[in-house]
Amino acid sequence: MKHKEEALAKLRGMGDEVLESVLHENVPNIKIPSRGTGNIIYNPDKRYFELGDRKGTRSLGNVKQIKKMAQMMCVGNFCKELVNIQKTATMREMYYVSEGWDVGFDNQQESNNITEDIEVTLGVSRENLGLLPEEDGASVFGDITLRDDDVEFNAKKLGKSGYTIPPTVDDIEFVDSNVDRIIAVETMGMYHRMVQEKAYDRFNTLVIGLKGQAARATRRFIRRASDELNVPVYICNDGDPWGFHIAMVIISGSAKLAHVNHDLATPDAKFLGVTASDIINYDLPTDDLKDVDVNRLKELAQDPRYKGEFWQTEIKKMLKLGKKAEQQSFSKYGLEYIVDTYFPNKISALEGKPIE
Amino acid sequence: MKHKEEALAKLRGMGDEVLESVLHENVPNIKIPSRGTGNIIYNPDKRYFELGDRKGTRSLGNVKQIKKMAQMMCVGNFCKELVNIQKTATMREMYYVSEGWDVGFDNQQESNNITEDIEVTLGVSRENLGLLPEEDGASVFGDITLRDDDVEFNAKKLGKSGYTIPPTVDDIEFVDSNVDRIIAVETMGMYHRMVQEKAYDRFNTLVIGLKGQAARATRRFIRRASDELNVPVYICNDGDPWGFHIAMVIISGSAKLAHVNHDLATPDAKFLGVTASDIINYDLPTDDLKDVDVNRLKELAQDPRYKGEFWQTEIKKMLKLGKKAEQQSFSKYGLEYIVDTYFPNKISALEGKPIE
Repeated sequence: MKHKEEALAKLRGMGDEVLESVLHENVPNIKIPSRGTGNIIYNPDKRYFELGDRKGTRSLGNVKQIKKMAQMMCVGNFCKELVNIQKTATMREMYYVSEGWDVGFDNQQESNNITEDIEVTLGVSRENLGLLPEEDGASVFGDITLRDDDVEFNAKKLGKSGYTIPPTVDDIEFVDSNVDRIIAVETMGMYHRMVQEKAYDRFNTLVIGLKGQAARATRRFIRRASDELNVPVYICNDGDPWGFHIAMVIISGSAKLAHVNHDLATPDAKFLGVTASDIINYDLPTDDLKDVDVNRLKELAQDPRYKGEFWQTEIKKMLKLGKKAEQQSFSKYGLEYIVDTYFPNKISALEGKPIE
Repeated sequence: MKHKEEALAKLRGMGDEVLESVLHENVPNIKIPSRGTGNIIYNPDKRYFELGDRKGTRSLGNVKQIKKMAQMMCVGNFCKELVNIQKTATMREMYYVSEGWDVGFDNQQESNNITEDIEVTLGVSRENLGLLPEEDGASVFGDITLRDDDVEFNAKKLGKSGYTIPPTVDDIEFVDSNVDRIIAVETMGMYHRMVQEKAYDRFNTLVIGLKGQAARATRRFIRRASDELNVPVYICNDGDPWGFHIAMVIISGSAKLAHVNHDLATPDAKFLGVTASDIINYDLPTDDLKDVDVNRLKELAQDPRYKGEFWQTEIKKMLKLGKKAEQQSFSKYGLEYIVDTYFPNKISALEGKPIE
């Protein structure tokens, strides 16, 4: 596993640097890239947020930093063991394990911060250091064969709920696949609709059920699928600022995770809908925009990730319309309408030819 | 599928009754069991909440009830079609579909209420009427072979996240299994710990990751597994009133779902921990009980589901101790401790012999 070797090498590097300072009777210190808002920069070429060059120094010569420095070493050592024995732990487990260290944590936030310091310093995501988020990722249905540990399986043959993306996405091997595209939808209701209408066969697509805001594991899986299967990715969410932004975080990453967006963002993914134009063209059942929706839309219009013409037009149109619509509102025309009519229309338009 | 035939027969029965009244020039009416708190009764023999005998009458002779009566017929008809064509819809989809009916709904709550009226009247759960909740159920890992539609799979061979219970639990066939027990845990963090430490092999158990409060699908799956595999079910949650109650809703059902508890409750399931006694015996890291915890514990002590000696003792002990502890706090003794030591101790005690 390449990413494990890399994580181990970088962890060792951090330790070696400190050791070397000690051996040369210098004061050990570590340079940590700043995660402050001033150092989170949108890169228009890469089309996602990343960290700038600003760095801070954590030094054993500064009495206020001694404890944090020691905690970094303890967490680094804990991670090295995890990766070595090929295990993982949740952040919460590590917090309890740290009770046995000489420099434990006062609270979970403190241990989260130190973990993030290490992620940023090494440029390695916590998952590859063996530290897992609590939650699993999205559901996946379609013709892709995966291998995880010693088990191989196809995501069309695991029952109606399909394959659930585990937190350890980089351990999965993409063995084989036969799909022309990937369609992610916001709700599990829509996911089950897609599965029931056999959208996976009719559009030769992977279907991904995001379950709202996409987990880190989901974002990493979509990125890997985009890179390794080399097919277009479409995201279909509710037609409101929250649905837009669930898609955008998959596409261009979040500011908070600027240090790992190079692994998580999928800048080539496209928003399929629901758009303000769809609301008009399909005469969808709507709700009025609330103040909080209007304010959020105005915020998005200023966000560098939304500066393209498509988004600027759709945001303005929605503000003018004063309406929003859910994915499931297509059911007005019958349960099958979204798969029979809407998806073929939209995908054909995006791909410039009729869907087969 | 027996439950589908049953659902269809009952839906037809409801329609026939109304039709017959019309043909005999009587005023059509339907008797609906009351869901008011006065009619929700704890049955100490069955060990769960069920509805009493109180019924209300909905009649076309009452001008205020005409719309609701018509809505019941429309929903009943929609469900009949769903079951016939072997499809399902979310409650949200039905709400949008109802835009095309002569008696649509003003809001989602109205359509939810009518659906519940039908569930209660027919004694059939909404899932078996083709109406699905949005969310999927728990994750399952272990040696059980299931069949869903035309696909057969084993829940040990689906990757690290295991099998995800779909909303349509009664469509699944339990083909084969080789387990001696079922252990459900509250968090996915603990689930992944169990999988990583191979608890499924060491305890010859199914491992179920509840993801907090168990979904209806999870409760139905656990009940079916308990009945059909004929093995004990253990639930291991956080040691606090919320963890207790997540277990209790699996064991004895909720008051709100009194009309379907006969299909959802698993009265023989046992709470494995974390108990107040465990906090003391294992010297676990704790947090102080907050006021809201104390109040909730006092409520539970009065609840008929908690009237047994085990619960009364443990609730009193926790109140006296003034402390609560999470599942993951066993990590104080190392990540493996809970599987190496705690589970074997507790299961042996419950089963009266050492775990193999």
